[in-house]
Formats: sequence, C-alpha cells, structure tokens
Amino acid sequence: MTQIVAPTHPFDAAVELASEGGSPDAFRGHTSAAYANMVGPFGGITAATLLSAVQQHPDCLGDPLSLTVNYAGPIADGEFEIAAHPTRTNRSTQHWNIELIQDGVVITTATAVFGNRRDTWSSTEIAAPSAPAFDDVAAQAFPDFIAWARNYELRFVEGAVPNPEDDAAGSDLAQPSSTSTLWIRDNPPRPLDFPGLTALCDVFYPRAFLRLGRYLPAGTVSLTVYFHADAAMLAAQADDAVLGTARAQRFGNGYFDQSGEIWGRDGVLLATTHQLVYFKD
Amino acid sequence: MTQIVAPTHPFDAAVELASEGGSPDAFRGHTSAAYANMVGPFGGITAATLLSAVQQHPDCLGDPLSLTVNYAGPIADGEFEIAAHPTRTNRSTQHWNIELIQDGVVITTATAVFGNRRDTWSSTEIAAPSAPAFDDVAAQAFPDFIAWARNYELRFVEGAVPNPEDDAAGSDLAQPSSTSTLWIRDNPPRPLDFPGLTALCDVFYPRAFLRLGRYLPAGTVSLTVYFHADAAMLAAQADDAVLGTARAQRFGNGYFDQSGEIWGRDGVLLATTHQLVYFKD
Repeated sequence: MTQIVAPTHPFDAAVELASEGGSPDAFRGHTSAAYANMVGPFGGITAATLLSAVQQHPDCLGDPLSLTVNYAGPIADGEFEIAAHPTRTNRSTQHWNIELIQDGVVITTATAVFGNRRDTWSSTEIAAPSAPAFDDVAAQAFPDFIAWARNYELRFVEGAVPNPEDDAAGSDLAQPSSTSTLWIRDNPPRPLDFPGLTALCDVFYPRAFLRLGRYLPAGTVSLTVYFHADAAMLAAQADDAVLGTARAQRFGNGYFDQSGEIWGRDGVLLATTHQLVYFKD
Repeated sequence: MTQIVAPTHPFDAAVELASEGGSPDAFRGHTSAAYANMVGPFGGITAATLLSAVQQHPDCLGDPLSLTVNYAGPIADGEFEIAAHPTRTNRSTQHWNIELIQDGVVITTATAVFGNRRDTWSSTEIAAPSAPAFDDVAAQAFPDFIAWARNYELRFVEGAVPNPEDDAAGSDLAQPSSTSTLWIRDNPPRPLDFPGLTALCDVFYPRAFLRLGRYLPAGTVSLTVYFHADAAMLAAQADDAVLGTARAQRFGNGYFDQSGEIWGRDGVLLATTHQLVYFKD
C-alpha cells in the first residue's frame, strides 16, 4: 500500500513555529527563501507568523480581531525567536504583546487583540470595487527579484506593478491614482485561514511605486489588520481567490499611508488593513 | 506689579505626567474629571497621555509617525503609572512599547513609531470633505453625561450625534450612512501639538450610534493614528479649528471598524486614523 502524503504548502512551511521549552510564550522559527522580499522577508509572512504564534499559545482565547505589526529592522535570513505574551485576558477579549528577536535584538514588535464574537446587527457600509471575474483577468508576473510574489497568483484589474523594463526604457509611468485592485490567490491554492488572510493584507506593493511609476526604496513601518471574518466565513471562502484593493491617502516627508480591503466570495468583506510606509524618492 | 499667570489648559492638566525616580521609562499620572467618558476616561485623552510619555522620555528621537493604542480594560478614576520603553532605536526611527498600569494590572497597551522626517516628493491623494466655514456651522452640545465633549467645540456638518430626547420619544433616528463630518476646536482654544492631534483622532463618537440612531454600549478596542503633520505644520495650525470626518466600513459580530481624517488650515491633511470598536446592540 502506498501512502500518499500531501506536501506541505510553502506558506505553512514559512509560518511554522516550534515551541521552546521553559515558557509557553517562547517559539522558534526560521525565514523562508520562498517568501523573501528585496530586503528580508515579505512583511505579510512576518505578520502571519506573529499571529500564528498567538494562535499556538496554550492560553489563546478566541479568534483575531486586530493586529498591529511594527517593522523595526530587517530580519536576517535564518532562525528567529518569537515571544508572545498575553498582557490581559478579559471575559471575551484577550490582548497580546509579541516580539520577534534575532541574536537578542528586537526586530519586529506587534500587539494583537483576540476575542470571542457574538451575533449582532451587521452591515457592510462600503462596496466592493467592481471587477471582471477572476478567470477574465490575466495573471501578471512580478519581477523575478521579488520571490514572495511567486507564491501568489496576482491578477490586476487596475494599478498593476510598473514594469522595470519600461522604466529602463525611459517611459514616464507615473499615475495620478495610487489605487490597485486585484484578484489574489495563493499559488498553489490554499484554504484561507487567519494567518493566510493576514499575509494577504500586505500583498499590495508600495503605492509610491505606482504614483511615481518606478521602484524606489520603501518598506512598511507599521501594519494594522482589522479582521471582519470569523472562522465560518473563512471556511466558506475555501481556497477561492479574494479581491483586494488599496490606495494611499497622503505621501510626504518620507512616509505615506495606505488603506486596503480584502473581499471574499459573495462580496463578503474579510478584512480591512492600513499601513504606514517609509519611502525614499 | 501684578504678575499674570495663564491658567493651565484642562487638556494639559489631563495629560500631565511626573517622572518616577529609578527608571527613565516610568511616569505617573492621574485621570481628569474634565475628560471623563461614560466609563473611564475619553480614549483620546488616554492615547494623548501615552504619546506624551514618549515625548517626555529622555531618549525620545524625533516626532511621532504612528501610534496604536489597545484599550484592554476600563481605567479607574485616580492615579496610574505609565511605562514607556524604546524597544529599538535606528538611525532615523525609534520604536516604543508603552503600558498604562493601575494596581499592578495592565489597563492599556500601545506601540508607537517616532522618527526624523526628510523632505521628499509629496502628494495628498484624497480630498477634504466639502463643508461650510466654521463660523457658518452651529455648535452642538453633546449630552451632559459625556463630560469630555465639553472640552471641544463640535460643529457638525453631517452626522451629528443622535439626541437621546428624540430617541426617548420613539423616533427612528437610524441613518443609512455612518459618516460624520465636523469642525472641532479645543474649548478654550489651544495651540495644536502632537498629543492634541492624537486626542482629536478619537473625537468621533461610535459610528453604530449614528447608523442605529441610538446610544448603546460601545468602546474602542484598538486605535491607530498615522501622523502626516510635522512640527512646522502643527505650528502653522495654531489654535484654529480642524475639520474631521469619519465613517465605518463594516459592522458585525460585536465589532466595527471606523476610519477618519483630520484636516487643518489650507486643506492640509494632519492625520489619518482608524479604530476597531466593540458594540452591543
């Protein structure tokens, strides 16, 4: 009898953590070449890994409500430690402090709020962006030096990433709007879970690239995710593509902010997300 | 000769902190009756106080870029301690962990990123909401039981707070949009600074009140502020009114998210802000 073992999805390998002996707060992980960015890992995989640490903590209560990750310095290739500590547990919510550490130095900090949800009045006040169906939009490859993007099928409806070859040819690719709207699916497909949704929130490349029509040094300083999906909504999503949209509000003095939305099957809003991004022009 | 001493503004009294001996990270403050909310203090004054602690820290680098405050439990009237610790200092940015503690229990946690700004390409991509001039909009009093609102002159252009007397009369005050746009000025006027701007970001009452047309239990779980203003922009603002606007994206399962903007003189975007809010319907 041949036993068929499904290979581990690269995403699951990237966010995998081992518990450290001694404290329930301590975990050990390692960076994944598959999710490398230009400098260090893709910020979304780091955020997903920090969230996973909380989910694996023996005292974890409920599901994620919000997450804020502050990228304090570049993560070096290799091993890292995560310390995830519940600072306060209430009846239905729990607050977390999380740190990613390499060689004793804090590289990334985060806070998260988890909780149990209750059934209440609901209303989605914003509308999903209009977009042709997933199958009717062509996939776009990111430049080869952005490794993490190969783990996603990215089908841009508007605001595709500038093509560096066009840039080199001297064309002016600057755009008046920083909005990108795109279908996104893990490649290979993967059922959506909270770490997967977290990573999707950082899939929008820096808005300054789009406005200025060229690549420039840029990196997320602080990322916030508000989770609107509960576990049942994630299960209903299965491994379908999601529709993401993001835009900037203000660029200036070396920083800009960017807000995004992740929409699921049947027009369900799964998450809203915001970030402050450093850039050098 | 009579010496005239300007009285301390209630805002400055509310955010006042004393350094504790022993550690540069330790501060002591106290709640202010003038900024009380229905349960505990106005979340904006707490956020402003946490930011002030960082600004008063001897190692503080530059000006605030982002702040995230997680409200883990109600702050009791009286004294509190603040611990503000620089987790990482880079060449131009600095990351902070901040906690507010009462009787040894963590009540509020926060992270902040501070930094030195550089001159770069700038663009404000969003537009300020259209509104009549400050002098052409009537001031609206908040219900008496919301003490903190007496420290602000609030002139609603749209989305004013429901009047509980109308609510008691059985009128249906529910609204299809959660947008509020209003002029806001400290009362008495006060020159804008970073703590003042932080507090303004929480001046929008819970959007669920507006949609459902009634008061209900609600409280901010997590608040994020992205500072677009630098010190020169704040100085130019002086004590003018600012124009604020906020709306919700999604209500459901006991929580909603709310995004806002604070606009200053000459249409300058001073801050963008987001929060996740608990509600019970």
